[in-house]
Amino acid sequence: MRIGVLGTGMVGSTLATKLVSLGHEVMMGSRTAGGEKAVAWVRSTGARASQGTFADAARFGEMVFNCTQGGASLEALRAAGAANLEGKILVDVANPLDFSKGMPPSLTIMNTDSLGEQIQREFPETRVVKSLNTVNAQIMVDPSRVPGDHDVFVSGNDAGAKARVTELLTNGFGWARVIDLGDITTARGTEAYLLLWIRLWGALGSPEINIRVMRR
Amino acid sequence: MRIGVLGTGMVGSTLATKLVSLGHEVMMGSRTAGGEKAVAWVRSTGARASQGTFADAARFGEMVFNCTQGGASLEALRAAGAANLEGKILVDVANPLDFSKGMPPSLTIMNTDSLGEQIQREFPETRVVKSLNTVNAQIMVDPSRVPGDHDVFVSGNDAGAKARVTELLTNGFGWARVIDLGDITTARGTEAYLLLWIRLWGALGSPEINIRVMRR
Repeated sequence: MRIGVLGTGMVGSTLATKLVSLGHEVMMGSRTAGGEKAVAWVRSTGARASQGTFADAARFGEMVFNCTQGGASLEALRAAGAANLEGKILVDVANPLDFSKGMPPSLTIMNTDSLGEQIQREFPETRVVKSLNTVNAQIMVDPSRVPGDHDVFVSGNDAGAKARVTELLTNGFGWARVIDLGDITTARGTEAYLLLWIRLWGALGSPEINIRVMRR
Repeated sequence: MRIGVLGTGMVGSTLATKLVSLGHEVMMGSRTAGGEKAVAWVRSTGARASQGTFADAARFGEMVFNCTQGGASLEALRAAGAANLEGKILVDVANPLDFSKGMPPSLTIMNTDSLGEQIQREFPETRVVKSLNTVNAQIMVDPSRVPGDHDVFVSGNDAGAKARVTELLTNGFGWARVIDLGDITTARGTEAYLLLWIRLWGALGSPEINIRVMRR
């Protein structure tokens, strides 16, 4: 499948590299084409890797990953263009974290709204699936780094889109357990969880953590 | 030990009953003494159970549990009185949930503050420990209702107070794993987690859920 990955940071490059290794054709998108990070990524990743603007990557992809920083995601998606995203699955892995006041960061959107919902409202013809935002980049694409079965979540209004993302998470990335939380408003839950995740990182001394949901 | 339990609802009565069963003397406190719920609880629980006002229960307890609704906790604690709480451990199990706009509830305090911090700021001579607010009342006092090992958290500024609460959680209530998240500001994490917990309840169809933190 052709996949667009918006964002050239750690999350974008980790996801893009994994997707290429699974056999997909991946275009990495950034504000301006030909940036140093994107060019270096293409050079080191090989034939199925390419790069361009946000709009190029969104146009290229049958599925698109939002790996931009949460505070810049709406602007990046506007640059990608609603027409280029229309009808497509957009996997939103970003968190609206504000680091401007130091550590630990706080959230700029939360409680009665979420970044996932804001994106879905602004791009109503795109099928937004919030996922993977509860773990760091390495665990996103290799959950076995944390021993034992633990969980990843999907939130979205389109059942077919969630099913396709779940298929990629399980058969592609190796997630044994994917919990469908419900519609896109449930992104409020996984984004708010970041405030606990940050404290767990602090207490346990490692960002390579995740949770397993257990029930009676 | 003598323990004061503020609040006569499901959480207060479940915790109070468990504490009596462990051999503690427990006074349940409410806005006005002699209320129907508190009197019924004393009658059904026996010799080590008593009831009174918030101030009576705070004065009685060597340790005090805040089991009032989060939105009413500061008012209840003011009624309990700073002098009656001075030097004591206050275990805050409440969440500042707002149900006024229907389900799911939202939080009235969060992100850059927490109910735990607000209580600690207003009662600086009290040793506040936030704990148990991430599970429902039945699981608080009987974690084995959810099979397997899962986690409960403590947040607070006083290491000695956290150690005593941890002792009660493990040897009293049966928690195998207690994670010390750090100072009282880490209550922001466990209170925000409620927004995920509510969605997990919705997705899994049961409030008898909890999480296990897993790490590399």
